[in-house]
Amino acid sequence: MEMQEVIERYQPDLEAVEALLEQQVRSENPQLTEVNESLLRAGGKRIRPLFALMCSRVGSGRPDWLHVLAGAVELIHMATLVHDDVVDDAATRRGKPTVRAQYGNRAAMYAGDFLFGRAIRMLSDIPNRDIHLELSGAIVRMCEGEIEQIQDLFNWRQSLRRYLRRVERKTALLFSVSCSLGAAASRADPQLVRVLRRFGYFTGMAFQITDDVLDFVADEQTVGKPVGGDLRQGNLTLPALHASTEPAVGDELRQRIHPNMSRNDVETSIELVRASSGLPFAKQLARQYMDKAMVQLHRLPAGPLQEDLATVARFVNQRMY
Amino acid sequence: MEMQEVIERYQPDLEAVEALLEQQVRSENPQLTEVNESLLRAGGKRIRPLFALMCSRVGSGRPDWLHVLAGAVELIHMATLVHDDVVDDAATRRGKPTVRAQYGNRAAMYAGDFLFGRAIRMLSDIPNRDIHLELSGAIVRMCEGEIEQIQDLFNWRQSLRRYLRRVERKTALLFSVSCSLGAAASRADPQLVRVLRRFGYFTGMAFQITDDVLDFVADEQTVGKPVGGDLRQGNLTLPALHASTEPAVGDELRQRIHPNMSRNDVETSIELVRASSGLPFAKQLARQYMDKAMVQLHRLPAGPLQEDLATVARFVNQRMY
Repeated sequence: MEMQEVIERYQPDLEAVEALLEQQVRSENPQLTEVNESLLRAGGKRIRPLFALMCSRVGSGRPDWLHVLAGAVELIHMATLVHDDVVDDAATRRGKPTVRAQYGNRAAMYAGDFLFGRAIRMLSDIPNRDIHLELSGAIVRMCEGEIEQIQDLFNWRQSLRRYLRRVERKTALLFSVSCSLGAAASRADPQLVRVLRRFGYFTGMAFQITDDVLDFVADEQTVGKPVGGDLRQGNLTLPALHASTEPAVGDELRQRIHPNMSRNDVETSIELVRASSGLPFAKQLARQYMDKAMVQLHRLPAGPLQEDLATVARFVNQRMY
Repeated sequence: MEMQEVIERYQPDLEAVEALLEQQVRSENPQLTEVNESLLRAGGKRIRPLFALMCSRVGSGRPDWLHVLAGAVELIHMATLVHDDVVDDAATRRGKPTVRAQYGNRAAMYAGDFLFGRAIRMLSDIPNRDIHLELSGAIVRMCEGEIEQIQDLFNWRQSLRRYLRRVERKTALLFSVSCSLGAAASRADPQLVRVLRRFGYFTGMAFQITDDVLDFVADEQTVGKPVGGDLRQGNLTLPALHASTEPAVGDELRQRIHPNMSRNDVETSIELVRASSGLPFAKQLARQYMDKAMVQLHRLPAGPLQEDLATVARFVNQRMY
């Protein structure tokens, strides 16, 4: 089963979601529309809407607000991306200039707020309090995760557990919510909703840890941003944190990576992490989360949905662009 | 009728809203809770919740989510304040250090996002689609207004109309929505809802124009931020825009106020505006909006509500702290 086949199966739904997104990002303000349309065109894989659409096949219902739900999840994701770029001082994302780099921090912040506003607008069309609660809860916890990330910048004494909690909030939560809300929208059995929530959660954990690995190994041309970007910002992810447990490497990393580090410190440290046990360790952990996701899938009725979800999960976690 | 008497009349409701706000700003993250609690304590006059509570007396209903509505409006206001301070590089607000100045831009941005998330959380408890639509629409348009403000920085060629549209989006909209949603929540006659929406709108216009005047005349100690802050940021408000229509003053202002202006340019320009016809003109316009607000009140049934609203509207527009 290939990813392309799965996408084709969901093509009409995905196109409907895309049309909704195009409609929602339009503003009376031409510059804002331009910013948002370039964000939309920048691509992104629409994994979250796809998961919502797929999981909605597990039940028998199909509410007329299914596309709205899938679109709202993507808008929330887009809003957080724009704000992350403000915070990260990122100049490129997916190989293209960020909103911040093109239009400045101020416009980027309000573009993000605008997208939040539009997401709330979309939620108005979903007459289901539980869905509102789950999505607003996810936004709140995602923000808490971002603030924790800021607090943990350059903090070499953070625990693995604290790193994993950040990964959960940063990525796993919205994956998880996309899956469970898609399932709930189809009035699936609550047991199946829970299974898919866990599937999304584990897939999201694997996705983000893989992202943190890619940040060290992928080159700028293929991943669309400079190598070692996390370390450059003091964002200590699993490869670096695990590398720092190797006695020799750890001392050097802690000496080099601090708020006043030099460019040379960063370049040397990136090489240190790349040569350490940090990358294989992180890849191994991502694989374990992937395995846990697959265990959940085995609890679904056998059929095409089970296979499709496995295909997409494998795809998002084997990104070696 | 004194403002204090009105506040006392609504004291139990205001306290309930305050308790809700205190509950909503709490986070699992202690620093975030601290940031948010200091924002709450910084005061603010809770004018928007007060208007919502007051206008809810115009109908006969009193939904159990009335306090939630009043609180959500204030949270949205707080979120935009935090984000404005990020954008403005503001060091103080209401005489106290801003979130940005205390904790940095990054934390301030996510603190604002967190508050938006909590506001959405509160909306989940309001089973009324129209209210969701009106509030999300207000957020969207407020963001558009902020982006317009950024686009119009240092733009001496902007029209009065464009300035007024910014004022509308920045302030009048949320005032207007607070009033109309309070009224709608009480299942008031749609005609009365419209009257109160316009009352809130005109009061908000007067409020913001007065704010723009105060920025030039109030001193730092009483208003809690440096004099001429708008001009320092290139934010051209009515007093400056009108001053620039005086031939002699206009040329000098346009020469001095530009992105690369000096401190001396700003100080001189503030004095130019203070001595010009800009301030009396803006005050006059604020008064005209106030009069329009009062005309709306005359369309309400005579009684204590009419008087109370007039008192609060006069209070917020005669702030000469």
